[in-house]
Amino acid sequence: MRPTPLLTACLLALGLSLPAAHAAEPTKPKYRSASEIIKASPDSDWRTPDPANLLYMELSAGRVIIELAPAFAPEHAGNIRTFAREHFWDGTSIYRSQDNFVVQFGDVDGDDPAKAKSLGSAKKHLPAEFHRAAKGLDFTVLPDSDGWAPQVGFVDGFPAARDPKKGTAWLAHCYGMVGAGRNNADDSSVGAELYVVTGQSPRQLDDNITVVGRVIKGIELLSVIPRGPEPMGFYENASERTPIKSIRLASEVPEAERTPIQLLRADSKTFADAVEARRNRIDDFYKRPAGHIDLCNVPLPARDPKAKK
Amino acid sequence: MRPTPLLTACLLALGLSLPAAHAAEPTKPKYRSASEIIKASPDSDWRTPDPANLLYMELSAGRVIIELAPAFAPEHAGNIRTFAREHFWDGTSIYRSQDNFVVQFGDVDGDDPAKAKSLGSAKKHLPAEFHRAAKGLDFTVLPDSDGWAPQVGFVDGFPAARDPKKGTAWLAHCYGMVGAGRNNADDSSVGAELYVVTGQSPRQLDDNITVVGRVIKGIELLSVIPRGPEPMGFYENASERTPIKSIRLASEVPEAERTPIQLLRADSKTFADAVEARRNRIDDFYKRPAGHIDLCNVPLPARDPKAKK
Repeated sequence: MRPTPLLTACLLALGLSLPAAHAAEPTKPKYRSASEIIKASPDSDWRTPDPANLLYMELSAGRVIIELAPAFAPEHAGNIRTFAREHFWDGTSIYRSQDNFVVQFGDVDGDDPAKAKSLGSAKKHLPAEFHRAAKGLDFTVLPDSDGWAPQVGFVDGFPAARDPKKGTAWLAHCYGMVGAGRNNADDSSVGAELYVVTGQSPRQLDDNITVVGRVIKGIELLSVIPRGPEPMGFYENASERTPIKSIRLASEVPEAERTPIQLLRADSKTFADAVEARRNRIDDFYKRPAGHIDLCNVPLPARDPKAKK
Repeated sequence: MRPTPLLTACLLALGLSLPAAHAAEPTKPKYRSASEIIKASPDSDWRTPDPANLLYMELSAGRVIIELAPAFAPEHAGNIRTFAREHFWDGTSIYRSQDNFVVQFGDVDGDDPAKAKSLGSAKKHLPAEFHRAAKGLDFTVLPDSDGWAPQVGFVDGFPAARDPKKGTAWLAHCYGMVGAGRNNADDSSVGAELYVVTGQSPRQLDDNITVVGRVIKGIELLSVIPRGPEPMGFYENASERTPIKSIRLASEVPEAERTPIQLLRADSKTFADAVEARRNRIDDFYKRPAGHIDLCNVPLPARDPKAKK
């Protein structure tokens, strides 16, 4: 089958490849796209996330999976596990969708003491967990820096930043990251009201709010949720909200109902090679390799380990 | 009305403000948020785009308005005007939606000579218009740089980049930017198949493809379009495509049917002050001003000049 020019262009734009029309020059090492590199990865470059760190958010559109980051927000992760165990979010909703920014979910009446759902046995007060000590973290530095932080890279597969002078590290607000909504006080979040980044990375929020994890599957179910009215996307009518059937810890869901998932290790050679292939695309489509990649432009691949390779 | 903590937090996160609970220190100049600055702008800081450069894309969900950038892509803008005048896009569709990347529209059969719609009197071949001479452009430099280009800023309200050594300038792939799909050859686009950025800015495409303009109103109608299957988001079934009723030049639409719109001038003091207010947010919510903003994090405000101020 001869691919259409449009398909060829699109595949190339994505770093995918078609069979070369001509043999590669023997002296030139062949450029491999990120997807080719990932496809050839050994199984040891993939990790299976701990089901005690996974949330299944069940929407009528399907399942969204969030991986918690207890290394950065242990107290919030603890409360979130309690909320999930006690079915706090069942019957709540996604009550805000602001274009090019976030969706937000939880108890829409959470700020009204007269109407708010009980927080159950979750802690009613948590410390701010904006950053932590960089020491003790396996931080994989991205070759490129940006203007938001002295260093950026990955920790446990999460996009992160680090300040070597201060000795602190924090999670970065990239697409799909999940944070804990708060009031003006640093320590005013309890992890009941969560937002998910669905737009251009709002990195100004970095180290200003507690980030609790990231969506590892199903982000496209959240990013298409119709936007609420400007400026902030809170729906005016309850009927516009997206109902949340339930949120459960994967560890509390029967094994047969769990979603098999593995994540590419950010400290693997495959990941580093894929990042480099994206930094400098040398294919028939790209005329000018960027020589650069921003933290939030690095995809964090997930796969179904049971799927046919 | 006492605002709820959640509302307060959200307003602050957006740079909006609530009345201060305490009077500001008299010696300290009061921080004004970007929205306060923009609200106080003089009318002279706004421009009315030329209707001959505006496309109205009519979807069942509403109208999307695209401003063309003839200063960067004069040949493509010329063809696009022809396509609109000759109703080329009427009855075509948005046939691709790839999460965190782009939607793409036009003639889904454009690459199949047997099925493709006639291009009418549009040119069948155009030069690549990836960049142009920087000379002669009123380029407003952003205080911050990034890793994608030696300099970034704004030209005629479009996010742009510049290479002083090469003397070239080009439009940047920020959210809402519109480009001309092409095949592998630089000069294989004619402006019939267009894409709109709906995800994290894919700046690796900068200076690699012809950017023709940007969505100035209605991007939220495009960004919520359900994603097609991976990896590229082309729908498998025609019924999943979003029909395009028509695309017209505003200049060809009766005045009574036009959408009043003005854009904040990127070379105005209001714009510069608003950018600075976002670079360094000093309010009750932000604990650590970023001291930085990325090109694609700068909103480009539009307003209805007839709306009550």
